[in-house]
Amino acid sequence: MSAPRQPLCKLATAVHHLLLCSLAALSVSADAKVHHHTWDIAYHYKSLDCVNKLAVTINGESPGPTIRATQGDTVVVTVRNSLETENTGIHWHGIRQVGSPWADGTVGVTQCPILPGDTFTYRFVVDRPGTYFYHAHYGMQRVAGLDGMLVVSVPDGVAEPFAYDEDRTVLLMDWWHKSVYEQAVGLASDPLVFVGEPQSLLINGRGVFEPFHCSRAPSASGCSSAPRPAAGCAPPALFTAVPGKTYRLRVGSLTSLSALNFAIEGHSMTVVEADGHYVRPVVVDSLYIYSGESYSVLLTADQDPSRNYWAASHVVARERNTTSAMAILSYAGNDPRAPPPTPRPEGPAWDDARPRLEQSRSLAVAHPDHVVPVPPRPDRALLLLNTQNRIGGHIRWAINGVSLAFPATPYLVSIKRGLRGAYDDQRPPPDTYDYRSYDIASPPTANGTVASKVYRLALGSVVDVVLQNTVALNNKSETHPWHLHGHDFWVLAYGDDGKKFDPERDTNKFNLRDPVMKNTVALHPRGWTAVRFVADNPGVWLFHCHIEAHVYMGMGLVFEEGVDKVGRLPKSIMGCGRSRT
Amino acid sequence: MSAPRQPLCKLATAVHHLLLCSLAALSVSADAKVHHHTWDIAYHYKSLDCVNKLAVTINGESPGPTIRATQGDTVVVTVRNSLETENTGIHWHGIRQVGSPWADGTVGVTQCPILPGDTFTYRFVVDRPGTYFYHAHYGMQRVAGLDGMLVVSVPDGVAEPFAYDEDRTVLLMDWWHKSVYEQAVGLASDPLVFVGEPQSLLINGRGVFEPFHCSRAPSASGCSSAPRPAAGCAPPALFTAVPGKTYRLRVGSLTSLSALNFAIEGHSMTVVEADGHYVRPVVVDSLYIYSGESYSVLLTADQDPSRNYWAASHVVARERNTTSAMAILSYAGNDPRAPPPTPRPEGPAWDDARPRLEQSRSLAVAHPDHVVPVPPRPDRALLLLNTQNRIGGHIRWAINGVSLAFPATPYLVSIKRGLRGAYDDQRPPPDTYDYRSYDIASPPTANGTVASKVYRLALGSVVDVVLQNTVALNNKSETHPWHLHGHDFWVLAYGDDGKKFDPERDTNKFNLRDPVMKNTVALHPRGWTAVRFVADNPGVWLFHCHIEAHVYMGMGLVFEEGVDKVGRLPKSIMGCGRSRT
Repeated sequence: MSAPRQPLCKLATAVHHLLLCSLAALSVSADAKVHHHTWDIAYHYKSLDCVNKLAVTINGESPGPTIRATQGDTVVVTVRNSLETENTGIHWHGIRQVGSPWADGTVGVTQCPILPGDTFTYRFVVDRPGTYFYHAHYGMQRVAGLDGMLVVSVPDGVAEPFAYDEDRTVLLMDWWHKSVYEQAVGLASDPLVFVGEPQSLLINGRGVFEPFHCSRAPSASGCSSAPRPAAGCAPPALFTAVPGKTYRLRVGSLTSLSALNFAIEGHSMTVVEADGHYVRPVVVDSLYIYSGESYSVLLTADQDPSRNYWAASHVVARERNTTSAMAILSYAGNDPRAPPPTPRPEGPAWDDARPRLEQSRSLAVAHPDHVVPVPPRPDRALLLLNTQNRIGGHIRWAINGVSLAFPATPYLVSIKRGLRGAYDDQRPPPDTYDYRSYDIASPPTANGTVASKVYRLALGSVVDVVLQNTVALNNKSETHPWHLHGHDFWVLAYGDDGKKFDPERDTNKFNLRDPVMKNTVALHPRGWTAVRFVADNPGVWLFHCHIEAHVYMGMGLVFEEGVDKVGRLPKSIMGCGRSRT
Repeated sequence: MSAPRQPLCKLATAVHHLLLCSLAALSVSADAKVHHHTWDIAYHYKSLDCVNKLAVTINGESPGPTIRATQGDTVVVTVRNSLETENTGIHWHGIRQVGSPWADGTVGVTQCPILPGDTFTYRFVVDRPGTYFYHAHYGMQRVAGLDGMLVVSVPDGVAEPFAYDEDRTVLLMDWWHKSVYEQAVGLASDPLVFVGEPQSLLINGRGVFEPFHCSRAPSASGCSSAPRPAAGCAPPALFTAVPGKTYRLRVGSLTSLSALNFAIEGHSMTVVEADGHYVRPVVVDSLYIYSGESYSVLLTADQDPSRNYWAASHVVARERNTTSAMAILSYAGNDPRAPPPTPRPEGPAWDDARPRLEQSRSLAVAHPDHVVPVPPRPDRALLLLNTQNRIGGHIRWAINGVSLAFPATPYLVSIKRGLRGAYDDQRPPPDTYDYRSYDIASPPTANGTVASKVYRLALGSVVDVVLQNTVALNNKSETHPWHLHGHDFWVLAYGDDGKKFDPERDTNKFNLRDPVMKNTVALHPRGWTAVRFVADNPGVWLFHCHIEAHVYMGMGLVFEEGVDKVGRLPKSIMGCGRSRT
């Protein structure tokens, strides 16, 4: 797959893009490098949490290697699929793919899946510094462990609005012993069989499986027959800190289900980056992080250097039935695996939603020197009601009554080629819902449809999206981290718990002065979240809840903009549905 | 997928084909029907042996429905792949696909896999009466339960050389609780993790999981924690017989690993058909049957009608660590589920190879009125040494030192289009081996290669294949049922246990007078098997051991003949490797 390189700024249509483009222009400097990676994707037995099970690996490892590049560089990843009979596709989470919409890796949206025995090459420019990811984007395959981090540094000589000595990556995950197939078939069954809580949490791909009730109460019923970790299975080392040094931890979550709280015992952290954007620095004792989000936090090794410290990841927002993950921050000179002398941290109460909402709000402000001006008003506003519906005997998630199903032919191909009927193109999905009369605690869940529709956006238009949460069929309301492909958005406001968004009343709550930009944002229980973006990236882009079970059950939608401006599509993205050329 | 129908006899090149063609000519009679089937292939939780696990199903069932048609009819099966992220392909086992080589369903050989969300239509003529199968032919996917039977009747007015009142199908399988992925990854690992013995045997898709050692010795160690079948889990009914009537049982084996012995307590059986060909009738107390074989046996309900009888399937040829499958033959008027008053049959000794070889020989003779004349001599003879090799750190099966790996592009497309290098086309695989100097008990296992090669045969030529068995790396010698796609072969001879085939000495042992034709033949431990066929079916055809683990590990080879005579290939078989058009 290759395509002519496009000038990165030719799509800029508004003054507020100048900053982005001036940074992006660096990407075509003489120093820009091309980073080649060759990956073999295969199943291997791995013991990520001390229990041996199949994982989808990259060159035998899960998670895969951290890709490192400098702003403006080109990353080329040649992916060979050595899975047995299963396809794959890899998404570069946070990379906007300006000029390369076919490299987004979203099977069903931007490409056909990569078949076993086939090789596919992703080639894209990393046009902005920041902390990003990659992961499988096909069915629920991410659950199987095909993921990793992608770190883009600023070029030499470019200053960031904070200082540190070294950086480290911290990838947070949750982990199941059931296969992806078992999970997906359960979700598609009637009655639905939920995936359940994860067996373990992982930090940098390592954890310790230990049934929660047994670790808390070893004599409890069932504990005698519970699996026991293998001897030698112990919390992994996080990294070794040199006293006095300051570290930039690039913390990312690719959980499949869990919202997390991450903390390092005895150390505060200063949040300085979110999803590739500099935030107004906030000092926190612990970081709430949702699947698809990344943060950089600064940590100074200023504590007693004669001992080690726990780094902990805890489930929040769902009843905690999974043992928290522990890793060890050691100080130089200590045994890096020596357990800290203190009890393992318990973490915050899982069901206290208030500090989570407060932290979301505190981190929604851009660094004062890096405010990207937000357009003052939208050209189009989408009010999206998130509901859990029963449709045709199955439980599905729906947005304004439409539950997303991916078409056999990738949208990008269908739209570019004008293939009528290759997706549900007869009626567009609704821009709004009856926001006056519905009840958050008893939302409309009848009359939903499962469909492959598209929101077609005018190229260059400014779009507001207000996500409104409700309760699910079990009367609980979950946290949904919504992730937008191909763009960043300004985070304008988070509504209060239990409050309906009213466009006449609530738009004046939007922060139009200094909102941070992100690509993933939390929709808190019974709340609403408002974002704004410019539809300036020709292509077709998924916008979805980053919980694997939720997007599998339809919690997503698709935007199209300016596909007529997209260059010739590579043949390598075709071969499925009606895209056989 | 559709193609112009070709006259079925235009490929006949020799006098001995006149019989086949005269029968085939019936297929274009005015009575020929088209049978349409629409199948949705999806994972579902099924309890085939009373343990709930994922199975690949057809319209929710495993095994799938029996397809019934009359000689000369056309079968059209529209397959929609609703597997999550996994492809599929379905082979019509025993159907030669004369004029439709692209419909053989062999992924990597005759087509690309069918992608999730895609629909593929198989269309073929069933040109000969007999008992056949269908099953997945992609990776080891057949293990997951995608299979069923295909019965072709003679047209009205055509007599068969035996009489019966009604027919019944009896599909034999073995069944694992591990997924296909777990099995395949183990086989590809170093050190190899074998799939192990099946958890259960199934008769018509039903069995009872019952750990062998516990059922035999309930107090044995480990039995207390062994899974117990659910209440109500009991041997299934086979069918209800009316006293005095004669039944044609169409018995087929689609085991993944196991050789079987099938018997019905108190009843002898007369074998009358093998793989679609009439055999000289042989009365047996029990039938040895290997994966990929089908037999029709006549059974007369001539026993005490006041009770029921066990129908039993037992593992043979491998140490029996799997509980035998039991079903119930009831007599009309009895409770069809009432267990027989007698103990469950034990079956023959698993390790007594002599009666198996003897039965193979006794069933290798055609019915005297249905002898298909065999050409007196071959144009080409292939001597194929079956060995288990260690190649590149992995244990593989090899034929004359070549271990088959399927190419990313189907052979049929590569060869038809002359795509150089799409498979290992630089050197052909060897026709023979050093049959004078090797040792069956210590065969050559070094210097093997994993490759995707092809034996290219002259169209219309007569080909002999002598398969020579040896011992594997564990010093044991297994039974390998070899199955040929696209053709039947004459079974000329089975060698004795421990005897090397010597072409100068042993060709005079061939039965050239009245050999039966088959499509699957057993290669017995430390023995040899000789078959002959006419390469008269333009296309590319797999020839392989029908044990899933063995073909996965390379125990197969590929024949090509007359691909230049194959019509325009349907686009629907393309889309993978270099076959994107």
